Amino acid sequence: MSVLLAISGMPLEVWQERLSALLPGMSVFVPGEPFDRRAIHYVVAWQHPPRSLNGLPNLAAIFSTGAGVDHLLRDPDLPPVPVYRIIDADLTGRMSEYVVLHCLLHQRGLLRDLQNQRQRRWAPDLLQPAAQSVRVGIMGLGVLGRDAAQKLVNIGFEVAGWSRTPKDIPGIEIFAGDGQLPAFLARTDILVSLLPLTDGTRGLLDKSIFAGLARNGRLGRPVLINAGRGGLQNEADILEALGDGTLGAASLDVFQTEPLPADSPLWNHPAVVVTPHSAAISDLDAITRRIASQINAVQAGETPEGLVNTEEGY
Amino acid sequence: MSVLLAISGMPLEVWQERLSALLPGMSVFVPGEPFDRRAIHYVVAWQHPPRSLNGLPNLAAIFSTGAGVDHLLRDPDLPPVPVYRIIDADLTGRMSEYVVLHCLLHQRGLLRDLQNQRQRRWAPDLLQPAAQSVRVGIMGLGVLGRDAAQKLVNIGFEVAGWSRTPKDIPGIEIFAGDGQLPAFLARTDILVSLLPLTDGTRGLLDKSIFAGLARNGRLGRPVLINAGRGGLQNEADILEALGDGTLGAASLDVFQTEPLPADSPLWNHPAVVVTPHSAAISDLDAITRRIASQINAVQAGETPEGLVNTEEGY
Ligand SMILES: NC(=O)c1ccc[n+]([C@@H]2O[C@H](COP(=O)([O-])OP(=O)(O)OC[C@H]3O[C@@H](n4cnc5c(N)ncnc54)[C@H](OP(=O)(O)O)[C@@H]3O)[C@@H](O)[C@H]2O)c1
Ligand SMILES: NC(=O)c1ccc[n+]([C@@H]2O[C@H](COP(=O)([O-])OP(=O)(O)OC[C@H]3O[C@@H](n4cnc5c(N)ncnc54)[C@H](OP(=O)(O)O)[C@@H]3O)[C@@H](O)[C@H]2O)c1
Repeated sequence: MSVLLAISGMPLEVWQERLSALLPGMSVFVPGEPFDRRAIHYVVAWQHPPRSLNGLPNLAAIFSTGAGVDHLLRDPDLPPVPVYRIIDADLTGRMSEYVVLHCLLHQRGLLRDLQNQRQRRWAPDLLQPAAQSVRVGIMGLGVLGRDAAQKLVNIGFEVAGWSRTPKDIPGIEIFAGDGQLPAFLARTDILVSLLPLTDGTRGLLDKSIFAGLARNGRLGRPVLINAGRGGLQNEADILEALGDGTLGAASLDVFQTEPLPADSPLWNHPAVVVTPHSAAISDLDAITRRIASQINAVQAGETPEGLVNTEEGY
Repeated sequence: MSVLLAISGMPLEVWQERLSALLPGMSVFVPGEPFDRRAIHYVVAWQHPPRSLNGLPNLAAIFSTGAGVDHLLRDPDLPPVPVYRIIDADLTGRMSEYVVLHCLLHQRGLLRDLQNQRQRRWAPDLLQPAAQSVRVGIMGLGVLGRDAAQKLVNIGFEVAGWSRTPKDIPGIEIFAGDGQLPAFLARTDILVSLLPLTDGTRGLLDKSIFAGLARNGRLGRPVLINAGRGGLQNEADILEALGDGTLGAASLDVFQTEPLPADSPLWNHPAVVVTPHSAAISDLDAITRRIASQINAVQAGETPEGLVNTEEGY
């Protein structure tokens, strides 16, 4: 029973050490090490090179180290075994921190306050819109979207959500499917994207979406917050919408190309907050414990949490 | 039955119009207008000139247009009638927005993110402390402190509060009185002041307090957020503490002198966020309705909410 760690952009040795300690009966290999491909039952992956996971005849499951699985499913040769994603309170909580922070930042006009501060300008006269009068619309009501929605409601925002299939979440107005998307957008002042990147969502955040947002809101111009995936957004359209007033501001944690290229005009746009895909960088201990317990569940013949619908892509 | 509006820094005519509409049986006068001083039963005040409220023989109550009453009680000739402060969900909710925003801002390192952005620097490697590992300590567990505490708990912060008298608030560790102040400070990474300005609190936020804050916390250096009153803080001490690393950052909504003088070094300190006493600028409709209902309660022989203990000063 062995685990192959096919992760990139993370400290490989630390992961190997942690998972080995958490899975005493198993060997944990990293690419490049000599190992028997027949011994690999589990792959733990983050942005593995496509086609690098085939030729593992006894592979039983693949585990994503994050909530998203687009980095797995883009592999045209992904072995046809069950795929699991992380569900972890640490990760979920951090994403909600990001969402609440950036909703409050735009609702309260913090960029304007910081600008006034730089100019030593004392300008208290503006009556800010209270959270009660600002309508947040969350795209994606999965593990992350639901938690963020509840926390935004607790602050006082008027919250709605949009998902593929209908939901019933107390305190949140629900819209589902493409048919209800226009109505969802029309009542939304701050659009928060917590969608997965799939064939159904790629490029969704484009000028037609921005043009559909509320134009009569207390915030003035609507705001975009994307913490899902960069592939959801059309950055040229975002810049155009900011330029012509279709959007008032944006907070972006994810980008079409990451790291965001140094020549992107997003970097120094006064109405854009750029964060480096750090909305929910999670505690390594929490994540490795979670994956170990998923592996132990498969070993015990149980179905661990986080089973992905590979047809739907999330 | 008449009301005297002794407010400054607010749109007097709008106030007069609103209160007149809400109190059909009464006349609402503003200073400078001719009126019979014997007809004044109620004063609605914000930063009135000291000694300007005497000589009103039939005065029955004074109403503060805000939550604080320091602007009233500093008048050495304040008529000895009951004083009431505002308790209003709109005001309370706005203050909690401010507190949650600025706690998340510092916990998540937003100033660092904005600085990186200005330098087009993609720097995701830092593992940020999760809210769960950051201890917020709220000074003042009154109407405002309690609401902010509950909302911070909901986000995930570890919250304690300090007040004059002991409390019992689920999910919040309580400290009370000067005796428990050192223990409260020692467990606090982010100190939030929502205290009233009284003889007991003036100048409290000084270097000895900052030196007592947690030095082993996940945030590194502790953070100060003051949205109470400027008179609570010693700004020279804040600057010194920021300079020598006793404090890591501060968000200040209130100042010893307001507007903050143009030559204050707080304006362009890279670790300080200055807001212009705007943490809880409230909806005029909400506030005037609240005061009208307080006046109606007194008229009906009832005790309205918000009675101030003028001995204690809040
Ligand atoms: N920036 C970061 O650091 C970071 C960190 C973690 C995760 N993420 C991103 O966040 C995403 C969401 O995470 P999660 O755990 O909440 O995912 P999840 O539990 O799989 O939920 C996905 C949600 O999106 C909805 N959805 C999917 N396709 C849709 C479509 N075509 N139209 C409308 N709604 C659609 C789903 O609808 P149904 O409920 O109807 O199925 C579901 O509500 C991840 O996939 C990942 O890309 C980013
Ligand atoms: N920045 C702004 O825009 C803004 C807006 C509104 C209000 N404010 C300020 O916020 C303050 C608090 O408002 P609030 O409605 O929460 O007031 P409150 O209901 O009167 O509560 C005051 C709290 O402070 C505590 N306290 C008073 N003196 C103390 C002392 N010497 N030591 C320890 N604790 C002490 C009280 O303790 P006990 O519970 O034991 O009595 C109480 O918990 C106002 O007075 C005002 O100055 C600022």
